[in-house]
Amino acid sequence: MSANQPLKNIAILTSGGDAPGMNAAIRSCTLAALHYGHKVFGFLHGFKGLINNEFILLEEQKVRDIIHCGGTILKSARCPEFLDENNQQLAADHLDNLNIDALIVIGGDGSFCGMLALNKHYKGQLIALPGTIDNDVDGTDHTIGFATAVNTAIDAIDKIRDTADAFERVFVIEVMGRHSGFLALNVGIASGAEQVITFENFKNPGVELQNIAEHIKLCKEKRGASSYLIVAAENLWPQGIDQLCNDLQNYANITCTPCILGYIQRGGSPVPKDRIMATKMGVAAIDAIINGKTMVMIGEVSATIVEVKIKYAVRHKKQVNGDLLMAQNSILDIAELAKINKL
Amino acid sequence: MSANQPLKNIAILTSGGDAPGMNAAIRSCTLAALHYGHKVFGFLHGFKGLINNEFILLEEQKVRDIIHCGGTILKSARCPEFLDENNQQLAADHLDNLNIDALIVIGGDGSFCGMLALNKHYKGQLIALPGTIDNDVDGTDHTIGFATAVNTAIDAIDKIRDTADAFERVFVIEVMGRHSGFLALNVGIASGAEQVITFENFKNPGVELQNIAEHIKLCKEKRGASSYLIVAAENLWPQGIDQLCNDLQNYANITCTPCILGYIQRGGSPVPKDRIMATKMGVAAIDAIINGKTMVMIGEVSATIVEVKIKYAVRHKKQVNGDLLMAQNSILDIAELAKINKL
Amino acid sequence: MSANQPLKNIAILTSGGDAPGMNAAIRSCTLAALHYGHKVFGFLHGFKGLINNEFILLEEQKVRDIIHCGGTILKSARCPEFLDENNQQLAADHLDNLNIDALIVIGGDGSFCGMLALNKHYKGQLIALPGTIDNDVDGTDHTIGFATAVNTAIDAIDKIRDTADAFERVFVIEVMGRHSGFLALNVGIASGAEQVITFENFKNPGVELQNIAEHIKLCKEKRGASSYLIVAAENLWPQGIDQLCNDLQNYANITCTPCILGYIQRGGSPVPKDRIMATKMGVAAIDAIINGKTMVMIGEVSATIVEVKIKYAVRHKKQVNGDLLMAQNSILDIAELAKINKL
Amino acid sequence: MSANQPLKNIAILTSGGDAPGMNAAIRSCTLAALHYGHKVFGFLHGFKGLINNEFILLEEQKVRDIIHCGGTILKSARCPEFLDENNQQLAADHLDNLNIDALIVIGGDGSFCGMLALNKHYKGQLIALPGTIDNDVDGTDHTIGFATAVNTAIDAIDKIRDTADAFERVFVIEVMGRHSGFLALNVGIASGAEQVITFENFKNPGVELQNIAEHIKLCKEKRGASSYLIVAAENLWPQGIDQLCNDLQNYANITCTPCILGYIQRGGSPVPKDRIMATKMGVAAIDAIINGKTMVMIGEVSATIVEVKIKYAVRHKKQVNGDLLMAQNSILDIAELAKINKL
Repeated sequence: MSANQPLKNIAILTSGGDAPGMNAAIRSCTLAALHYGHKVFGFLHGFKGLINNEFILLEEQKVRDIIHCGGTILKSARCPEFLDENNQQLAADHLDNLNIDALIVIGGDGSFCGMLALNKHYKGQLIALPGTIDNDVDGTDHTIGFATAVNTAIDAIDKIRDTADAFERVFVIEVMGRHSGFLALNVGIASGAEQVITFENFKNPGVELQNIAEHIKLCKEKRGASSYLIVAAENLWPQGIDQLCNDLQNYANITCTPCILGYIQRGGSPVPKDRIMATKMGVAAIDAIINGKTMVMIGEVSATIVEVKIKYAVRHKKQVNGDLLMAQNSILDIAELAKINKL
Repeated sequence: MSANQPLKNIAILTSGGDAPGMNAAIRSCTLAALHYGHKVFGFLHGFKGLINNEFILLEEQKVRDIIHCGGTILKSARCPEFLDENNQQLAADHLDNLNIDALIVIGGDGSFCGMLALNKHYKGQLIALPGTIDNDVDGTDHTIGFATAVNTAIDAIDKIRDTADAFERVFVIEVMGRHSGFLALNVGIASGAEQVITFENFKNPGVELQNIAEHIKLCKEKRGASSYLIVAAENLWPQGIDQLCNDLQNYANITCTPCILGYIQRGGSPVPKDRIMATKMGVAAIDAIINGKTMVMIGEVSATIVEVKIKYAVRHKKQVNGDLLMAQNSILDIAELAKINKL
Repeated sequence: MSANQPLKNIAILTSGGDAPGMNAAIRSCTLAALHYGHKVFGFLHGFKGLINNEFILLEEQKVRDIIHCGGTILKSARCPEFLDENNQQLAADHLDNLNIDALIVIGGDGSFCGMLALNKHYKGQLIALPGTIDNDVDGTDHTIGFATAVNTAIDAIDKIRDTADAFERVFVIEVMGRHSGFLALNVGIASGAEQVITFENFKNPGVELQNIAEHIKLCKEKRGASSYLIVAAENLWPQGIDQLCNDLQNYANITCTPCILGYIQRGGSPVPKDRIMATKMGVAAIDAIINGKTMVMIGEVSATIVEVKIKYAVRHKKQVNGDLLMAQNSILDIAELAKINKL
Repeated sequence: MSANQPLKNIAILTSGGDAPGMNAAIRSCTLAALHYGHKVFGFLHGFKGLINNEFILLEEQKVRDIIHCGGTILKSARCPEFLDENNQQLAADHLDNLNIDALIVIGGDGSFCGMLALNKHYKGQLIALPGTIDNDVDGTDHTIGFATAVNTAIDAIDKIRDTADAFERVFVIEVMGRHSGFLALNVGIASGAEQVITFENFKNPGVELQNIAEHIKLCKEKRGASSYLIVAAENLWPQGIDQLCNDLQNYANITCTPCILGYIQRGGSPVPKDRIMATKMGVAAIDAIINGKTMVMIGEVSATIVEVKIKYAVRHKKQVNGDLLMAQNSILDIAELAKINKL
């Protein structure tokens, strides 16, 4: 990169559910762009801001001290109206009116679909950064916000374990993740939960109910009275974890307490992993813009920055790593151990 | 205190909802008792353990490293069967059989009522330590566990604020506290919530609904779009905060997201305040036993240890400090300010 | 209080070492003042800003979101030049030129001495809020920042314990506190340290060296190899804790690792205790101004707001609570226990 | 893997500096081994325990609840005496006497060198897990403990920033890392430090002194008075950071405050990243043993488990990722920006 590059107007927006580290990414994009002399605009409220032409100028002083802040200073919003082609054209017009050469979108796969649509109307460069606590974006080991969400969930479950231990009780804890099991599986393993109910190994409620009930009873037999934690992915058990608790009561007379962690998983100061990855990705986004790239997502694979076609990130469903599932089975499946022991 | 005192057998139990700092109190009672040469027993599962004669010997090595642990190594349990006089007599018999000279109960007012009952059957000394996250025990500035619960709730709400800010949305957050507003009011003030709904200033749902709706609209007028947090005490709004959200939607077309913090508020490593107060109280409990006291609760008033009759602690309802209510009104009541400004 | 009071110009400054919760106090003073219609100015860099006439207008939007921020948005500074009477007069002139009716100073006893001096030149009201991590201000149970500093030190020592345990090693940890033992004693007890070296019970290096060495050996005898933590107040051991470690090596061949916690103890997001107390105190400061008070410090005693003459707060040295010293002796003094056991 | 494998005796030890997550690895190795019916021994105090034949039996109950604990339940120790061949033979004899089929060593490259030596005397399988906060082991993206150490350092520096901001002062913060810049560089970027002094880009003290002084002055010019944080790797600046502060004072009249973070970086509850990676690696270690592997280290590359020859991990020096250095330069080098702006 050299200072002889043409100076550009670069815009940034954050879209979809907020994720810790989005501000670190905004900061990094802005500082790196200013470093090379470019000008930076921030659109507010995600794609809604493109439609409504709401933006601010991003200067060093505005972003300098935000690396540790949760949320997003550019705000976010759901924007179903961006499905309308007229609004897509309006967005492109607003970008053109400001002479924006490149737009960086920080968000998840819904946001990337928005970029595919916008690309038909806007001739500038489009660069994506993966920002979602769900980690359900392919082409990158991790998304911005995932590490912090896991951390928050673990902190919460470490506390719930105390009460579960004191009362030797079964708790069912629901974590976020939309339709992906990354959060549930990582949180389950890191919290030492006795059971994880996730998309990747779920058969059907009947089979699972029987497995869980047997496992709880086996644990009680082997360990005596003790706590038992079940981490469950949201959107998985029919009618939710309250129903799961009812089902366990009815099926096997096991009393469970349901806990939904909810929105605390979205916020909070980003953990270092998210701050660092977001910083690297932001710098790489500006690098990609300088190099004339478009329709690529910046990812991180094995601690190294990569560029991936946005189409790829959208079209592939990232699989939860097999090592994790194997770890869960080997560590948690005391039932299996019991069978071996009986041989 | 001198080494010439008769050496005693002292028992400890934890009862009711677990509270962070109970282990610090167990440790402190045990170490102080051992310091003077007494012998220490721990009954398990609260009053249930008295009935079932479940106990362990407490030695230095068992309690040395538990000051920072949430929950209670002596376990806890609800014990409605202790209302039965036969069980009270059984408990007294078990204590007598072990030659227990004094029993320390760490718990809340329910546990203290149990002590009043036990006192009719057991001739040894009975000493209470206030341990509950609800802070609803009179005769002490704070109960063991309250400071940690406030801390946990604030940590959670600081995170929720990030999402509320990013989406400029209204959140209603329910905190624990049973039938007392200490948690809600302290948490509301420390989190900078725009609104606190608590027992101490609640009129009726109709009036409150109107006030809240007006305040939300006024805030929006004065600040532009922005987040708005409502901290609500549990057991207050008829049918809970989901209904409050529905009511606000129906009454004033305001969309709110409900969050129930739930069991995370009970657990976790105790904050220093709870560790220190529990340590001081534990030492004072042994001191009281050496001095022949019975049916007293150890409290802390203005950082100084006090002894209070258990009857007093049970019969008086502690009032939330007026300074707190005044602070809430002065800081949060922007509506009031607005009226003044219009004059 | 009513809206018919004359509307005033109120100024705020923070002075001396920064303490977590100062921002919460600034916010609370400002919001409460605005609530009653007053106007609020913030002087920058403590008394230096009074001399240099550096100030900003404090409005709702500037203070709304700072309750959780460490440091002070008004900056602080040491200001030896305020000992000069000419500068005191200059400060008074600047306040008069702005028609400031009342000045709130948030700081420790050095800052309060500055107020005594300023009072000779300035005819407005002067209100003090106790803000220092050292807790060495009389007339209040706690100072703003103390609870957070204890918390930070405990977090750090909980981590050091892990390494001390893994290597079965002796660590000496120096905490702040200037010439007062509040921090050392509270931190020592809450961390479960085996030994606390503090002003309140220090005899002389020779005696202490012998006591510590004997205690370490006794612990090793009774417990087998294990970790041993010494929490030491700064400014106590001649030539500091590195020398203490050398002395223990030379005197008794005990190898110790020194750790100075240092500046991490000053910063960080205030714990709820500091946020809430600062909020109450800020509201009470405005209340005192409305009621025509001057030369008073707002304190909190037994969770209730009090007003104390600044002279009193400056002239009395607050004593560490006797219960704490008793707790330390009973819990930590295993040597004493050993002697009793031998009888 | 099948239950028909021969059942083995497996030993585990932790060696070198303790690192958060070592307990999670011990737990995972043990549970996975028990899952397949193997027997597990834990040697104490690292290689010292091999020489002295100090060991315990590891059962489910001993490791079940340690995933969140810092330090190592197997203790650690430096062991220079293991350089002696007689001691290596003694260690091998002790392993043979117990019929240990495989030994898992959790530690850093010093420990791996011990394994190379032991391999000449011991005929069983040897499996390494990378456990060190320094991240200076090749063949794995991260070592166990690194993520937690970064996290701890950031927490500390976030607090120091508060005081630096309040006093608009320069702080120099020394972080660990032995002879590698991973910690310094990651911590520097994630804390938003203005300057990172690390092995990877260090020229010589004279050049660096000039660069730093110029950068500090430039920042002051562009931003006005403000804080300035320098994160420095240990073992880099001649005579340490106290000398660096003196040098800056003498060279450019810049007053700096030095802070050495020290031992807090080694301990603490492991962050989820370390818990999860340690769990996966532990399961993979048992898998490797079942598959007859020896002299391999388990690593994690791009979230996937890999096996690497121990020789490789020892002989290669892992390079700090180029993207990180690029990020540092682009974000922090305001001086460079200034030059461009002047063109």
